[in-house]
Amino acid sequence: MKEPLHLCTPAGFRAAGVACGLKKSGKLDLGLLVNDGPYPAAAAAFTRNAVVAAPVTLGRRHIADGRIRAVVVNSGNANACTGKQGDADALQVCRTAGKVLDVIAEDVLPGSTGIIGRKLDVVKVEAGIRQAASLLGNTAENAESFSRAILTTDLTTKTAAVRFKLGRDVVTIAGVTKGSGMIGPDMAVATGAITKTGTKPLHATMLAYLTTDAKALPSALQRVLASAVERSFNCCTVDDHVSTNDTCALLASGAGEGKLTSAQSRVSFQAALTDVCQDLARQIARDGEGATKLVTVRVTGTRTEAHARAIARVIADSPLVKCAMHGGDPNWGRIISAAGYAGVPFDQYAAVLKLQGTAVFRRGKPLQIDDKALSNAMKEASDLHVHLACGEGDAEATVWTCDLSRDYIRINADYRT
Amino acid sequence: MKEPLHLCTPAGFRAAGVACGLKKSGKLDLGLLVNDGPYPAAAAAFTRNAVVAAPVTLGRRHIADGRIRAVVVNSGNANACTGKQGDADALQVCRTAGKVLDVIAEDVLPGSTGIIGRKLDVVKVEAGIRQAASLLGNTAENAESFSRAILTTDLTTKTAAVRFKLGRDVVTIAGVTKGSGMIGPDMAVATGAITKTGTKPLHATMLAYLTTDAKALPSALQRVLASAVERSFNCCTVDDHVSTNDTCALLASGAGEGKLTSAQSRVSFQAALTDVCQDLARQIARDGEGATKLVTVRVTGTRTEAHARAIARVIADSPLVKCAMHGGDPNWGRIISAAGYAGVPFDQYAAVLKLQGTAVFRRGKPLQIDDKALSNAMKEASDLHVHLACGEGDAEATVWTCDLSRDYIRINADYRT
Repeated sequence: MKEPLHLCTPAGFRAAGVACGLKKSGKLDLGLLVNDGPYPAAAAAFTRNAVVAAPVTLGRRHIADGRIRAVVVNSGNANACTGKQGDADALQVCRTAGKVLDVIAEDVLPGSTGIIGRKLDVVKVEAGIRQAASLLGNTAENAESFSRAILTTDLTTKTAAVRFKLGRDVVTIAGVTKGSGMIGPDMAVATGAITKTGTKPLHATMLAYLTTDAKALPSALQRVLASAVERSFNCCTVDDHVSTNDTCALLASGAGEGKLTSAQSRVSFQAALTDVCQDLARQIARDGEGATKLVTVRVTGTRTEAHARAIARVIADSPLVKCAMHGGDPNWGRIISAAGYAGVPFDQYAAVLKLQGTAVFRRGKPLQIDDKALSNAMKEASDLHVHLACGEGDAEATVWTCDLSRDYIRINADYRT
Repeated sequence: MKEPLHLCTPAGFRAAGVACGLKKSGKLDLGLLVNDGPYPAAAAAFTRNAVVAAPVTLGRRHIADGRIRAVVVNSGNANACTGKQGDADALQVCRTAGKVLDVIAEDVLPGSTGIIGRKLDVVKVEAGIRQAASLLGNTAENAESFSRAILTTDLTTKTAAVRFKLGRDVVTIAGVTKGSGMIGPDMAVATGAITKTGTKPLHATMLAYLTTDAKALPSALQRVLASAVERSFNCCTVDDHVSTNDTCALLASGAGEGKLTSAQSRVSFQAALTDVCQDLARQIARDGEGATKLVTVRVTGTRTEAHARAIARVIADSPLVKCAMHGGDPNWGRIISAAGYAGVPFDQYAAVLKLQGTAVFRRGKPLQIDDKALSNAMKEASDLHVHLACGEGDAEATVWTCDLSRDYIRINADYRT
């Protein structure tokens, strides 16, 4: 029997998660992930929001040399909008983690998610780091505790992994993520120089940590991570609200035999990494606040991938479309009208729209269908599929979202945050 | 005692509204507005959606010469996504209205709002036109019946008017509008040549009709309408969903003494027109589907007006912010993080955020306030005020939106459209 893969399946990684008291509930809220590999390399993508949390500012600096030995993440407090104190606190956390793990502070990547605008209780975090360090290991339980420690309003842990051949060598990529509300990530890979912010219209707190046993240079990791993030996390949305803390890090240990050196190996690794990231992104959308359905919006037949993504995005973000999905309403009019305001070429007379595989609109007009049957099918399904074929080219893109329900309102309006 | 101003207060206008049977409820669904003035001139702004309804396509053509003698509007059916049949039907409606009113068909501006994708019942509309023509008049009742005939999911009629001095002459501007869902207008004034569509990211069906007794050339009306629309309807949002039918028309009769000739007269007229349009735009946001509160988002201190509008817009469109407004939650974190992803310069360390006039965030950090008292004040208020001072310049902009409630979900998910 095959054992399920997990975050610490790739050789060279150890993890742990503990409860240090940041969450009043007493749930796990502090995670440590350590890269013991012989050739540690890393790349990370951070939110493009012009307002960033202290761990993002510091994280960009620590990733600049492409080397990360340890990730320290807390949930329950985002350490965002905390001024210079927040910056000092994030640094203190990295220093303590470095000291406890015997690595330099600059090789520690910090991460935080939770309440904004409250000072991080560093004393609790430091005690948590010491406790977690004593529990580090590479078992499925270790991975599981780390994946739980990073959650906030999530209802489930989110993990994915793949094992594949890179030439003659077996490589494993694994990942965990969190995110349920304030989800509309738009992240850019940090490439040594500090990434420019606020330069384009952006779209949660989501955190994702990926591990691999492959040997790779940081520059190669940056390239594959950028492409994977663009087609996964940056294409998932719950409420189109870009968080101040979004972070996705890829750590390579080099403890395996696989190498990212040849062009062919990069292509294979890229495909596998993108798969893992898309799997994680789908899990975020499915666990979106108040969600009852995962909605996959696939747009094909555009001239460029950017056009397809723009159209898929406005459809996925329209409250009218999301309400229709919630009610099982095959409301093609809301989808077609959304496509029309994406700001890219769209010709209704060239387009075909399918819902759950049934064509409902073709070349400018709705089709005669069994509306009731389709509606019932949509109501029963937990996965909804919107496919808009634009008939203008060969490019395509997919965006994952969820329906909009009363529970979203309850979660975000009734309780003070 | 001053009589209230209405759509037919400006000399030269007659209106009527009747029920022609498009709405199953038997409510008014066909409106006629006639310009009998000696110097009829007009300008109109239409949706920038790449998918437009037949009356928009035809209306752009009819407004091209700057002359409109009559407006014919139906509710209950949008005549959108109805193919070539829809185009033929819109033309037939204008021809019949022209014949009945003794004007040429090209001087008739059509308008439709309601269900998408269903053939317009032209026979009913034509009977309605004949009935409405027999009821035309310039009383408050006439204006009221027109304003009711254009409604769909609106709970209230929406009207505004102003009387002011243009030099020595008294001028009146009046207007009516409709809109409650699929509201995120982005309209451009048609200027003879057909307006390009789909060239920028856009943001309902809203319809607005404005009347004035001033004498003006179409080109002057285009200029003032473009500026007024940009700062009013294009700055109101319920769900950020641009409709296929959005239309705003300004009709001048020339029956009064005021003239839009001097630069000074245009400035005065512009200010009055913008006031009327902003009043109407606020009424749309306040009557947004499921709305319990009007939310005014004012952003000041940016380098350009476009920057201020971009920041105000993302705040106004964030579901997280709208839920917080619904719950009376002074959640500054959601507002500041939204400002950060507007894609324009924003520095949290230079910003001050006020809710209901109370500063809650200043220069990177939340302020100590009586959270409970502010929350109670927000819960009791029907008008919420968000003011973000960016501290970077002298420009400003205001966007009007509403809160996001369970009723929005009920209206848009539970009932088939």
